[in-house]
Amino acid sequence: MKKKLAILGSTGSIGVSTLEVVAQFPDRFEVVSLAAQRNIDRLEAQIRQFQPQLVSVADEARAQVLRTRCADVPVEIYAGEAGAIQVATHPAADLVVSAIVGFAGLAPTYQAILARKDLALANKETLVVAGALMMPEIKKQGVALLPVDSEHNAIFQALQGQRRADVRKIILTCSGGPFRTFSPADLQRVTAAQALRHPNWAMGPKITIDSATLMNKGLEVIEAHWLFDVAFADIEVVVHPQSVVHSLVEYVDGSLLAELGVSDMKIPLAYALAYPERVPVAVPRLKLPALHTLMFAEPDLKTFPCLQYGYEAGQIGGTMPAVLNAANEIAVDKFLQGQIAFTAIPRVIRHVMDQHAVQAVTSLNILCEVDRWARQAASAWLA
Amino acid sequence: MKKKLAILGSTGSIGVSTLEVVAQFPDRFEVVSLAAQRNIDRLEAQIRQFQPQLVSVADEARAQVLRTRCADVPVEIYAGEAGAIQVATHPAADLVVSAIVGFAGLAPTYQAILARKDLALANKETLVVAGALMMPEIKKQGVALLPVDSEHNAIFQALQGQRRADVRKIILTCSGGPFRTFSPADLQRVTAAQALRHPNWAMGPKITIDSATLMNKGLEVIEAHWLFDVAFADIEVVVHPQSVVHSLVEYVDGSLLAELGVSDMKIPLAYALAYPERVPVAVPRLKLPALHTLMFAEPDLKTFPCLQYGYEAGQIGGTMPAVLNAANEIAVDKFLQGQIAFTAIPRVIRHVMDQHAVQAVTSLNILCEVDRWARQAASAWLA
Repeated sequence: MKKKLAILGSTGSIGVSTLEVVAQFPDRFEVVSLAAQRNIDRLEAQIRQFQPQLVSVADEARAQVLRTRCADVPVEIYAGEAGAIQVATHPAADLVVSAIVGFAGLAPTYQAILARKDLALANKETLVVAGALMMPEIKKQGVALLPVDSEHNAIFQALQGQRRADVRKIILTCSGGPFRTFSPADLQRVTAAQALRHPNWAMGPKITIDSATLMNKGLEVIEAHWLFDVAFADIEVVVHPQSVVHSLVEYVDGSLLAELGVSDMKIPLAYALAYPERVPVAVPRLKLPALHTLMFAEPDLKTFPCLQYGYEAGQIGGTMPAVLNAANEIAVDKFLQGQIAFTAIPRVIRHVMDQHAVQAVTSLNILCEVDRWARQAASAWLA
Repeated sequence: MKKKLAILGSTGSIGVSTLEVVAQFPDRFEVVSLAAQRNIDRLEAQIRQFQPQLVSVADEARAQVLRTRCADVPVEIYAGEAGAIQVATHPAADLVVSAIVGFAGLAPTYQAILARKDLALANKETLVVAGALMMPEIKKQGVALLPVDSEHNAIFQALQGQRRADVRKIILTCSGGPFRTFSPADLQRVTAAQALRHPNWAMGPKITIDSATLMNKGLEVIEAHWLFDVAFADIEVVVHPQSVVHSLVEYVDGSLLAELGVSDMKIPLAYALAYPERVPVAVPRLKLPALHTLMFAEPDLKTFPCLQYGYEAGQIGGTMPAVLNAANEIAVDKFLQGQIAFTAIPRVIRHVMDQHAVQAVTSLNILCEVDRWARQAASAWLA
């Protein structure tokens, strides 16, 4: 029996890597549905190669163009959030790969859980923003939650066959980004083009900027808290510029289990797709002698305060992580457009967090409202 | 219910560390029997502290001295191999810690298996020399085999919860010993005192010299073959001078799982004692940022041929690993006594291996005969 996949965000970096794994193992995996946003050229090629039954795009205009182009292919084409939810809840899908970037990934992922789909989770916001809603539902529906982030995937692997009670610490590694050795004064002047040159990983622009500010690690701390049910005090971050050790679990007896590998997202993706088995996905072998040395250092929280804000928002809880996330999305967007300095990113986040009156997360609706408020507050402060 | 332990080699380095773990967790572990060789002062102290029911020493003369000294303690005292076997097969023992150094550990360990004791195995020769006899018996008796060597313990941990079919390679790390950067000419002149200064681990003299020649890693390659049922072609050795990464398992999907920790044998010992649980044994936490860098390199098989001889003897199989081991024991002994040069160790091993007509391992008796022959051949060549 082939495993049937729904892929949310199929034309993005994670989506493309997922489909590379699928293409390598046609006897194991089958694509039943794909959701993309704007890149209909790539989506058309994916439709022709993988023959999904159903796809969706950002809006009706694009859906129309695609319907015309794909008139010769038996595929249903939908649009908007409703379309993405149809992709996520396709009755035939066994596993949903959730790889839409940002807050937009939330609703389709939630609907996938309610439809009892196993989840390969690459969308950070699902847990960062809505962990308090998602985790109980994931448990209630009995779906498997397979993290795709290389860090969380590493931790997930290092927890297999172990007792939760024996875990002492979760240790997330962090490349430190392209500006790891920069002073605050240097950071003032960095451009989007510089920030987009990640030393190890080829990723989408949003997450690449988040890696440069260390906000990515701040979000991952919150994600780890929900994924592995571990207190913030027991989550540590270690800078490891080569990104070879993808993360570690420290056990009470002084043993640390780590997952290592080359920097290729196909490794955690293939793991999540094939779990609980493994497949010989086409990636280069990691050769430790060829690397010579692996470096480790403490993170510099003064120069890169976003990591600290992640811990802080996570510990405050409620709607604060949603505010952190929304303010950051606005700030990164403005930075990518060249409208604000790199160092303005943490400043606007700090400002918006300080303005926020925290509420409990009792519905997706509250999160949507808070998300809207935080985006407005961030935009207003930056204007 | 406390786990009841029999400890073979209680006054050696591993035995002492084992008893440190026992002393830390008196509610979990209880000592029922202890076997030592010559150090009756230390054994007497252990008897008084841990109150075993039965102990044994190397010979009847020492047993008599100890009986007089311990007249006030309710302990039975035996001698010789028969005594060690009584310790190993004590009816109350749940787990036997096999930590007698060298060929002498073989018979008591075998008897422990036949008596259906779970085994925490620190004695390398049990598998190096007699893997072909031991492994089928271990399976037949259904006993747990828990490796104590930090390398094999790391691999054992990295295999938990994983499918054997998904393993691509076993990667043993190797400190490279104190002479890692020495040239063949430098090696000619090294003394036993220099060789006994291991950079990371405090161990007994035999294994410390084996670490300096890389024979220790050669023996571990053979041990890994038996423990994890993996072909020699799929066992790799990587030099890692800091001994922080204790070893790794490479899976077919490009993920490597590694166990890391400080260089303290109490970690693998506590793991083996508490398995399948873990206990918070008193060892320092490993702090990666404090280490700054971890180094890796290819082993230098030309300067340190003993590692290559390990692979070779393992691949030839039959009685050849017993010959490798016996010739090495003689050579190390002579080197420690200052009678031969460091570089004569591989030379005598090569010579004795070349003289040997390999037989199948069908009984412990054959192994004893081959062991005797190889020791004589080594001594004769060195004389």
